[in-house]
Amino acid sequence: METTQPSGILSPAVTAFTGQFEIDAERTVAHFQWLLKQGCDALVVFGTTSEANSLSVTERKNFLEYAISNGIDPRKLLPGTGCCSLPDSVVLSKHAIGLGCPGVLMLPPFYYKAVSDEGLFRYFATLIERVGDDRLRIYLYHIPPISQISISFDLIERLTTEFPGVVIGIKDSSGDWEHTRQLIERFASGGFRVFPGSEMYLLPALRAGGKGCISAFANINPGLLQEVFQKWQRPEAESLQEEAQRQGRALRKYPVIPALKSILAESRNDPGWETVRPPLVPLSAAQREELIAELGAAMRQ
Amino acid sequence: METTQPSGILSPAVTAFTGQFEIDAERTVAHFQWLLKQGCDALVVFGTTSEANSLSVTERKNFLEYAISNGIDPRKLLPGTGCCSLPDSVVLSKHAIGLGCPGVLMLPPFYYKAVSDEGLFRYFATLIERVGDDRLRIYLYHIPPISQISISFDLIERLTTEFPGVVIGIKDSSGDWEHTRQLIERFASGGFRVFPGSEMYLLPALRAGGKGCISAFANINPGLLQEVFQKWQRPEAESLQEEAQRQGRALRKYPVIPALKSILAESRNDPGWETVRPPLVPLSAAQREELIAELGAAMRQ
Repeated sequence: METTQPSGILSPAVTAFTGQFEIDAERTVAHFQWLLKQGCDALVVFGTTSEANSLSVTERKNFLEYAISNGIDPRKLLPGTGCCSLPDSVVLSKHAIGLGCPGVLMLPPFYYKAVSDEGLFRYFATLIERVGDDRLRIYLYHIPPISQISISFDLIERLTTEFPGVVIGIKDSSGDWEHTRQLIERFASGGFRVFPGSEMYLLPALRAGGKGCISAFANINPGLLQEVFQKWQRPEAESLQEEAQRQGRALRKYPVIPALKSILAESRNDPGWETVRPPLVPLSAAQREELIAELGAAMRQ
Repeated sequence: METTQPSGILSPAVTAFTGQFEIDAERTVAHFQWLLKQGCDALVVFGTTSEANSLSVTERKNFLEYAISNGIDPRKLLPGTGCCSLPDSVVLSKHAIGLGCPGVLMLPPFYYKAVSDEGLFRYFATLIERVGDDRLRIYLYHIPPISQISISFDLIERLTTEFPGVVIGIKDSSGDWEHTRQLIERFASGGFRVFPGSEMYLLPALRAGGKGCISAFANINPGLLQEVFQKWQRPEAESLQEEAQRQGRALRKYPVIPALKSILAESRNDPGWETVRPPLVPLSAAQREELIAELGAAMRQ
């Protein structure tokens, strides 16, 4: 039986921490429940926005098990499992698939720079062999502004040819609509599932043949994005998309992860949400005040 | 009792892998023994050149224990312990210090980009608190071409002021002599131990008040660098340094890690040394031939 793959609005869900920078599993799962109720079709647990790269392998495994055993449907989870080291990525991918998640989002290994497509191909090929599970489905994660490592069209071509039905999609966080458009044009007809990594391109992506979006902004207003997704073929989609872009732009004036957490702290009246794990820092009081003035009202709708 | 801190020629030792990309512990330890016999004062196990960021925490711990129980003196090891995640860096640092290593080389967390000095300070401060071992000695690792995260002079000032005797040195792999010179000028008089990350600046660093160098090139010709170190106050140091630079430049025409491994494979007649873990790839046959033609003779001395 083929697992259903997620479409629509996916949130790379933020992770709550205690004052001692430990994962606050209970508060994080409550956020997951809110996101799914408010209109997220699925959650990317352990994305960039989740501060996943500041978590250890053990923390990730334990938290994923906690979330599932506390009522989060694993079929709604697409965990990020790409690390710098092949064995870590193998362990996390195996674990997520074993728990019933429909797929994983894979960063390329990101420490060594200027690596070749051949090296990345060997990395993914070895990973697929080592995971050794027919259920494995991989979404590539193209986020050159942060990882500094590109997933080239040639690499996608080679991976989808060698591993059809395994390498099945991509999150494109290039921030470049033309790149996303070309990805869809070149690969979507073969069933490749393209998600822009921002709400900015949700409507254009849906019109071109993309599957939705995976957007940090979905942490605070998934309902608005879900409305765009539901109505994308109707005229009112345009103004909904414009409103999403307006709010998204307001958010992105600040460091996104602490800004999201400030909004959650405000809208839930729960200052504990402000905590980020180092090397990130919370917003300054002045930044927080400005942000809330601009976005607080929309969030409390 | 204060542990003696290493000075002189430190090699960020390469890691041998089996054909299945597993650590070949026996072959790696044999290389460590060769390096110490040939003139290395100490070894940076798990540096960039060691492909450390392609290894899991468990692999690093197991291999370090293996090396020490197979005769490598822990007082000669300065393990790299800086990871993206605070808990991983804590576990590795605690482990290395507990085994009797005199210090650790710490990359800053390198996934999130454009992080603030305040965020990095919180990271190191939390790490020091969590390791909670009076024996902890930290060498910062400044390698912006790869990590993309700088260790600023302000950050060093703050860390050495808040944690005197704990944050005691730096490996400067900026590749910029002026940066290394300023580091020495500003911090060496307070006892801060500055090592350029390349043989190119060994002699200038020693003359300015640096402690030696930590150089990938030391994997293949540590004897030459040790001679520069021994004779740095004598006139012949100049021509020895020039020869080291000539050989170093020849090496750096190629991707350094696979190039080092090709030279080891050639000089030891052991093709197994060619293996690198993905995402790295070995040199092409043509690259290998050129490199050996230029450097093979010097290496077989």
